[in-house]
Amino acid sequence: MSDICPTLRRDGDQVVILDQTRLPYEEHYLHLNSLACAATAIRDMQVRGAPLIGAAAAFGMALALRHDASDATLHHADGVLRQTRPTAVNLHWALDRMRAALSPLPAAARSTAAWAEAEAIRSADAANNAAIGQHGLTLLRQLAGTRKPLQLMTHCNAGWLATCGHGTALAPIYAAHTAGLDVHVWVSETRPRNQGLLTAWELARAGVPHTLVADNAAGWLMASGQVDCVIVGADRIAANGDTANKVGTYLKALAAHAHGLPFYVAAPHSTIDPACPNGAAIPIEERSADEVRCLAGLTEDGRIVRTRIAPDTSVVSNPAFDVTPAGLLTGIICESGLVQPDALASLTRH
Amino acid sequence: MSDICPTLRRDGDQVVILDQTRLPYEEHYLHLNSLACAATAIRDMQVRGAPLIGAAAAFGMALALRHDASDATLHHADGVLRQTRPTAVNLHWALDRMRAALSPLPAAARSTAAWAEAEAIRSADAANNAAIGQHGLTLLRQLAGTRKPLQLMTHCNAGWLATCGHGTALAPIYAAHTAGLDVHVWVSETRPRNQGLLTAWELARAGVPHTLVADNAAGWLMASGQVDCVIVGADRIAANGDTANKVGTYLKALAAHAHGLPFYVAAPHSTIDPACPNGAAIPIEERSADEVRCLAGLTEDGRIVRTRIAPDTSVVSNPAFDVTPAGLLTGIICESGLVQPDALASLTRH
Repeated sequence: MSDICPTLRRDGDQVVILDQTRLPYEEHYLHLNSLACAATAIRDMQVRGAPLIGAAAAFGMALALRHDASDATLHHADGVLRQTRPTAVNLHWALDRMRAALSPLPAAARSTAAWAEAEAIRSADAANNAAIGQHGLTLLRQLAGTRKPLQLMTHCNAGWLATCGHGTALAPIYAAHTAGLDVHVWVSETRPRNQGLLTAWELARAGVPHTLVADNAAGWLMASGQVDCVIVGADRIAANGDTANKVGTYLKALAAHAHGLPFYVAAPHSTIDPACPNGAAIPIEERSADEVRCLAGLTEDGRIVRTRIAPDTSVVSNPAFDVTPAGLLTGIICESGLVQPDALASLTRH
Repeated sequence: MSDICPTLRRDGDQVVILDQTRLPYEEHYLHLNSLACAATAIRDMQVRGAPLIGAAAAFGMALALRHDASDATLHHADGVLRQTRPTAVNLHWALDRMRAALSPLPAAARSTAAWAEAEAIRSADAANNAAIGQHGLTLLRQLAGTRKPLQLMTHCNAGWLATCGHGTALAPIYAAHTAGLDVHVWVSETRPRNQGLLTAWELARAGVPHTLVADNAAGWLMASGQVDCVIVGADRIAANGDTANKVGTYLKALAAHAHGLPFYVAAPHSTIDPACPNGAAIPIEERSADEVRCLAGLTEDGRIVRTRIAPDTSVVSNPAFDVTPAGLLTGIICESGLVQPDALASLTRH
């Protein structure tokens, strides 16, 4: 799997991101040169995916401290970035880590240290992805047996676009494909933001056989014996194993449970929130109604056009996440290996 | 509820339908003047919804027999119409009823009789809708208790647009609204064809409080205590009560079951297929990949534009229905009252 682009990288005193709001139609890079730019990029989902949100917040802090690294600026930047999105705990984890590294330092040393710490977060995420990929590969090899292909299902995008490396849920799939395992991936569209199209785009680039379906098709595919295993990412895992992930994950977990299919969450330790006792304590982001009402697509002549699909006469609700109870998880694939939801307390966060 | 339009009516020797592929953007009526037009209208979902498909097939037969009502024409029309869509059994029921009424007649008497029989199917459907509405209202009154509002959820469109009267799943909701019961309806978008937008459009016209959500939100809404009851329509109910309905219904049924919520199917007897032993025997229609890849929406200047949202680099699968096992149904609301799935054998089809 060499066919990935950096989702986020430093370029001098700026940060360059792949603008995910323009995918899969255009590969367009944005230069971020301020705290405000970084906060907007996270809020508007130009960068997205829990691990990448964490790294983007860290780099946003580095941008904020370039010219003034006083306590007040550090505090302000932390507050602005922390409020961009409520559910992915990696955001808080990364900002906590940045504060812990920077607060003890004299202001004059903070800018250099901020870039270094952000870079460390980024490279650790890539390493965690690789470890998740290898641990997941072991599981997939066991599952595959004589199944050709091994039929996997995922939801949303937890691939390289959601991280600084090869992804979380997709890392085992990429590792399996590279290892020559015969896999096929059911990719659910993931309304309303259609991050499934990002997954389809990633898998197509990597040559991994896959089929795009409406979210509604998941139950039927499982009931008709066309799915062997589900792997998804996570935005926050509570101490008891309850897992918040993109809205719709819970429905897939219920269906997998009904059909006796393994349901794995793949996420780094930084997605675990030991301070959050259970799913009821995870804040669920309510996003704009426009995400349901409007949709960007390509016209016949190749222009990206945003059209309105739902009229203003109806109220819209748009919860962006849901919670899958720990009891529905077969296990959590993280950088330290496969962990049972009830054994999370034994893990440490780096 | 007086605010409905005829979804289908005779106009001289033609049939006029409300073109549902242009809703909710435009209210546009189409004149059908041949068997081919009628078959296309059903296949392309200009008319849709199991009961309306049945009625449209009956009127399609009347169109076919206008100038030549020989046995050969009758047989040909039956074959053409029967192959338009595989899952909704009302299509077969209506064509069986037309054949039974017309075959014994001399050819010269068939055209008049065909219009009359089609009209009888249409008016019976409206009467069945009304009865379903009243039986459902009784259930909703019991459920409501002190709940204000009573929180209902539906999927797809089983309203007046799907029938010749006030709908199946929406009939109880309209009856409740008319009776002054405080109800609110969660309307799921219903990708890929977005028939939820038809439901939202209907409910907005009728002044019924409702909220549009992505299909993925259903589990979260139930888990967070925001749903009291689910009511959906059906395309075919097997003899054992297994029910095929729009893809995604099964996921809602699983979630309702997980949260102890009542899950009702509302459908006339003509949706029951006594010859079909169980869900495994129900053919599930696979529709065009373009339904997932492309979407019509309104531009800022009010034009309907079809845009492509998923690239050609991904294979698409598009099963249009799924099967909800009888065990997940609280009951079936039909014109004769509430029926348990295991008591279907006692019902007769008219």
